[in-house]
Amino acid sequence: MSTHPLEEILHPRSIAVVGASGSGRGGGFIAPLQELGYKGEIYPVNPKYSEIMGIKAYPSVRDIPGPVDYVISSIPASQVLGMIEDCSQKGVKAIHLFTARFSETGRKDAAELEQEILRQARKEGIRLIGPNCMGVYYPREGIAFNSGMPREPGSVGLISQSGMVVGQVVNLAGQRSIRFSKAISYGNALDFNECDYLEYFAQDPETEVILMYVEGVRDGKRFFRSLRKATSTKPVIILKGGRGKSGTRATASHTASLAGSIEIWETVVNQAGAVSAQNLEELVDIACAFYFLPPVTGRRVGVAGGSGGSSVLAADRCEEAGLDVIPLPNEIREELKRKDVPVWDWISNPIDMSISGDTFDAWEVAAMMARNPKFDFLVIFMSTPFHRRGRGQGRPRISVDKHLEQYRLEEMNHKPLLVVMEDSWGDGVGNRARKVLAEMTEKVIVANIPVYPNIERAARAVSKMIDYYQRRK
Amino acid sequence: MSTHPLEEILHPRSIAVVGASGSGRGGGFIAPLQELGYKGEIYPVNPKYSEIMGIKAYPSVRDIPGPVDYVISSIPASQVLGMIEDCSQKGVKAIHLFTARFSETGRKDAAELEQEILRQARKEGIRLIGPNCMGVYYPREGIAFNSGMPREPGSVGLISQSGMVVGQVVNLAGQRSIRFSKAISYGNALDFNECDYLEYFAQDPETEVILMYVEGVRDGKRFFRSLRKATSTKPVIILKGGRGKSGTRATASHTASLAGSIEIWETVVNQAGAVSAQNLEELVDIACAFYFLPPVTGRRVGVAGGSGGSSVLAADRCEEAGLDVIPLPNEIREELKRKDVPVWDWISNPIDMSISGDTFDAWEVAAMMARNPKFDFLVIFMSTPFHRRGRGQGRPRISVDKHLEQYRLEEMNHKPLLVVMEDSWGDGVGNRARKVLAEMTEKVIVANIPVYPNIERAARAVSKMIDYYQRRK
Repeated sequence: MSTHPLEEILHPRSIAVVGASGSGRGGGFIAPLQELGYKGEIYPVNPKYSEIMGIKAYPSVRDIPGPVDYVISSIPASQVLGMIEDCSQKGVKAIHLFTARFSETGRKDAAELEQEILRQARKEGIRLIGPNCMGVYYPREGIAFNSGMPREPGSVGLISQSGMVVGQVVNLAGQRSIRFSKAISYGNALDFNECDYLEYFAQDPETEVILMYVEGVRDGKRFFRSLRKATSTKPVIILKGGRGKSGTRATASHTASLAGSIEIWETVVNQAGAVSAQNLEELVDIACAFYFLPPVTGRRVGVAGGSGGSSVLAADRCEEAGLDVIPLPNEIREELKRKDVPVWDWISNPIDMSISGDTFDAWEVAAMMARNPKFDFLVIFMSTPFHRRGRGQGRPRISVDKHLEQYRLEEMNHKPLLVVMEDSWGDGVGNRARKVLAEMTEKVIVANIPVYPNIERAARAVSKMIDYYQRRK
Repeated sequence: MSTHPLEEILHPRSIAVVGASGSGRGGGFIAPLQELGYKGEIYPVNPKYSEIMGIKAYPSVRDIPGPVDYVISSIPASQVLGMIEDCSQKGVKAIHLFTARFSETGRKDAAELEQEILRQARKEGIRLIGPNCMGVYYPREGIAFNSGMPREPGSVGLISQSGMVVGQVVNLAGQRSIRFSKAISYGNALDFNECDYLEYFAQDPETEVILMYVEGVRDGKRFFRSLRKATSTKPVIILKGGRGKSGTRATASHTASLAGSIEIWETVVNQAGAVSAQNLEELVDIACAFYFLPPVTGRRVGVAGGSGGSSVLAADRCEEAGLDVIPLPNEIREELKRKDVPVWDWISNPIDMSISGDTFDAWEVAAMMARNPKFDFLVIFMSTPFHRRGRGQGRPRISVDKHLEQYRLEEMNHKPLLVVMEDSWGDGVGNRARKVLAEMTEKVIVANIPVYPNIERAARAVSKMIDYYQRRK
């Protein structure tokens, strides 16, 4: 099998940042490379500076002494053709055009210039990422375009027409400890387009789950083929931008995309076996399920940890998401009766913690669910070790570790397990409770259990995961 | 007009807590009363103690020296009939039965005892709240049932079959600075039921918006009449618990409610002119719109502050919520042209901040939207004054006040205005950014502008508000 053209350009020995400056975005492309410890040479290029961010700067790409594999361009659109000429002399393999103001402006001359750039690059054998995009985040290679992007690599690949969305998804996913193999923002998709990126990530051994944000595709048939092929080996989760008429208008001025009808889009995505996300949060929620859980293939869920009304609402949300909140199996009821649990005939699924009171340990019932083959997976609510009421509210009753013990995570983990941690603390004890919440979240995630902020998001994410595996069967 | 029976019992001169103890829930009912500064006498009742929470305790209600208007019962179900006898001798007007294990257990003897309690109370002229409920939160009277419930009163009334839901809604709403006139949790609704509470809140001058959490209603026709009457004077927002088959099963064991089909329910709620919320967050989101905004009656929205993909997604979410993201009116375009804004023909609604760059102030365009009669309201995204990229990330560029100035809130406030503040900060700068986010949120709320965590929730909330006013017309 031949190497994918993207693979060839994603391991550059050196990166030149053309249009770099001491401040602003040009300098901004250098700082993240330094921060992530990019191993190759970094060459700032700007005739106005002799040094940028502590590195010697060159007036043009031609003046750089060593070889240059990869160029990040943040010069104005009008200067790009000249730069391509310089690049061809240096044997540059690829240019990431952060440079914008091309076809997305809706202006004829700008669109024509864009096409001329493509022709020139093709002639010189130089590949293009963009234009009008943030480019590549590849932690293993030390390549990033925002400061603060995590150094540690993971197994999620992200393809996005918008660089802003890459930033948001990497941050939101980071809050859930999800890490990325690589993320590429591709803007106007002049040379490499969504299909190239998808085909690349599909065969990429570093990527196990693919996330996509797409505003429009150039070639619907090829996209369908690429997508179907990708989903046969790994899950692809897609968020479509430009679903309605105003969003479609916005995609035109953002990345010059022609978005088709959303109904046709959804049909294509489903038939190809991909997973459709409705918004950014859901994109990350579904990624979280695939990232942490073993494949969940059945819909029968056991729910525990809610209390009173929140148990009722939990059952509703699960059912609305297409899950099956089965009644408590008889064998569990019989076991409770044998153990003389006074509410053996009353307790149900969801296990309502307000029923258990002091008479028995509801988490023992949850552990029975974990052992029972009638359940495909479990969702449990966790609370913080704070008093909600009465004296001592605002002080944790016990340590976080002690508190976590009650949930018997090791026993629960016989099944795929999702944890819900709600932040429904008011103003009063809020800040302290939130700190403990963050500490608990981290400990649960270290045990490879995904955490969601509410039951609805947990239920929808796992349900879409089940959809994927059921379609694949 | 005669006084509503609930009004007569909600201003008690004294409260006896029967079954109070030094620890646990019994003591828990006393602490919140002390914390909120309840002005009347508090009488702990428990033969095992001479003093509880620093107050003299009495062996029985009969032994209390002064008059007793209101009793909170946390004794076991089997002792309630005896207590009612004591209460009748003391001239008690109302009993809140926190006591549970009645019809919700599904057991015949427990259900019969519940009915016997109702008969006895009626005979003695004592009204009942509950059983199986948390009772009353009434900040103006210093009555609360959880510690940490805000002291300051507000104009939102909450009626909830579940006490847990009251706690969650008061906390979630508290995070958004929403305050309550009163909140009542009513559990099994043995005496006063959902219609009584609804009719009371409808005529209550302290309440401007009514929130309800309902698992089941006793008398559908009366409920419809009460609801229609209430919605003609103030908005009623209802969350139904027990929508599907498993949720319905859960309501039975929670509050012994018989929930009907959800389709019939939705029809009744719509025809009565009430607003239906899909989950707890949405209940609070919609309350937030009614609490802070003047009536919004049209769907034409102007959106500003998003960037690139987030503008595209914002347009999608608004449209999916039933809002009308109209194109930028020609008169604004002409004004931009006159002012020599270079991207006058490119900029659109939503205003994409990545287009503006350094060439003009996008917030000036937003201010034009605020003055333009073609827009019914505005939604703006706010960001924190942090560098997202490059050097200096993690340090605010400018002070929060200086940063807030750019949004020209006073000019924006010509229209009803909703603010979206997303927390998409990753691990790195996360904590500091979140602190600033909280500070900004507070300042925006002080200006009486509602804040939402994402565009979807803002759009859905305001859309349901518009539904309400359009139906009322």
